[in-house]
Amino acid sequence: KGRVVAIVGATGAVGEVLLRVLEERAFPVAELRPLASERSTGTTITFRGKKLPVELVRPEAFDGADFVFFAATGELAKELAPEVVRRGAIAIDKSNTWRMDPQVPLCVPEINGAALEKHQGIIASPNCTTTPVVMALAPLRRLAKLESAVITTFQSVTGAGLPGLEELDAQIQAIAAGKPVPPPKKFARQIANNVVPLCETFTDNGYSTEQVKLLHETRKTLDDPHFKVTMTCVRVPVP
Amino acid sequence: KGRVVAIVGATGAVGEVLLRVLEERAFPVAELRPLASERSTGTTITFRGKKLPVELVRPEAFDGADFVFFAATGELAKELAPEVVRRGAIAIDKSNTWRMDPQVPLCVPEINGAALEKHQGIIASPNCTTTPVVMALAPLRRLAKLESAVITTFQSVTGAGLPGLEELDAQIQAIAAGKPVPPPKKFARQIANNVVPLCETFTDNGYSTEQVKLLHETRKTLDDPHFKVTMTCVRVPVP
Repeated sequence: KGRVVAIVGATGAVGEVLLRVLEERAFPVAELRPLASERSTGTTITFRGKKLPVELVRPEAFDGADFVFFAATGELAKELAPEVVRRGAIAIDKSNTWRMDPQVPLCVPEINGAALEKHQGIIASPNCTTTPVVMALAPLRRLAKLESAVITTFQSVTGAGLPGLEELDAQIQAIAAGKPVPPPKKFARQIANNVVPLCETFTDNGYSTEQVKLLHETRKTLDDPHFKVTMTCVRVPVP
Repeated sequence: KGRVVAIVGATGAVGEVLLRVLEERAFPVAELRPLASERSTGTTITFRGKKLPVELVRPEAFDGADFVFFAATGELAKELAPEVVRRGAIAIDKSNTWRMDPQVPLCVPEINGAALEKHQGIIASPNCTTTPVVMALAPLRRLAKLESAVITTFQSVTGAGLPGLEELDAQIQAIAAGKPVPPPKKFARQIANNVVPLCETFTDNGYSTEQVKLLHETRKTLDDPHFKVTMTCVRVPVP
């Protein structure tokens, strides 16, 4: 039988990709519920050729669901994932909120799919940089003990969602027209014609929040809490 | 008294910067001789507010010179640097040709200026990636023994000279206009809206020629022939 799948943040960059993945893999969806904040209700999304209205996200929207994906802000996932669990569904969160919670599996299916067996209703998906890092490290670890990893990332502007893409595009338009480049909003510096060695913001220890996530999530996903990792995360002008 | 300075490749991207550096540092130039291949003779360059005609590069143009800078192809430096020495002048080469010759100092003045004392008429300047790498490593080595270095570079299109800049610009113009992007010529792939993990070409061992240069030049400049270095050199869409 098919499953009832809700997507919180169905109109964002991540939600859009999720819809396409569900289509491509022919996931058995009996009912799809696209949910979003007030700003996006009234719009529609397309799933398997049909237009579906986007409804306001609220706890009642999870009634009868099997899976609720959160492709939204961490605040929303923090508030609403417990409501999903309370209704007997499984919350799968793309945000940073639940990843380091000891009761929540942080899962890259190819690496630690078995971690899902201990879930208590909430499952977290790693940061987009952690996934390729552990996909590369996991097979190496099967061959030899790894002492440490030195990681440098080249991260697309899509890490800042659709506004990041729009910022790059507007700057490229200005450069091509020989006009003044609009000032940065999502990024610390102009991103077109540049590379910016800061993803998100700095923490007190001099690493960025993105780098700290990569460190802790790599250790948790590999189940190796003392693995030595250092990382340089760089934003590059790639859409 | 001032010096007689010739520049082979005075009309290229590197030659242009060299002219500006000589101006900025008020280097005592009594006579400047801008030289270039046939293609550029007849044009002019500007030095200290005066236009100077670009003359054809040939051995006789080095007669009476004190310093001859090569900001040109390696082939030209290979053929003509000995002609400079034969005429009692000093050849300073920016190309790759002479760097690993045991009789040629490979000099970053801040790091190993003393190496110049043993010159035999030809002095080599490192690859543009080696210089910042050894500028960072040298002070660390004064504090502690370094075991190894893991280096990742983000390299501007200017590493491919003016044609590299023009290639990025033409691709940005096409992207901004929504037109098909002109195919790559100087780079292995489209460079606008992309990062390309290949600088120059691959060698037989899987490293690129740029990476191999960085390895050997770092060891020579630091006078540490067994220093362990691994490197990833990446071209980024930065002018």
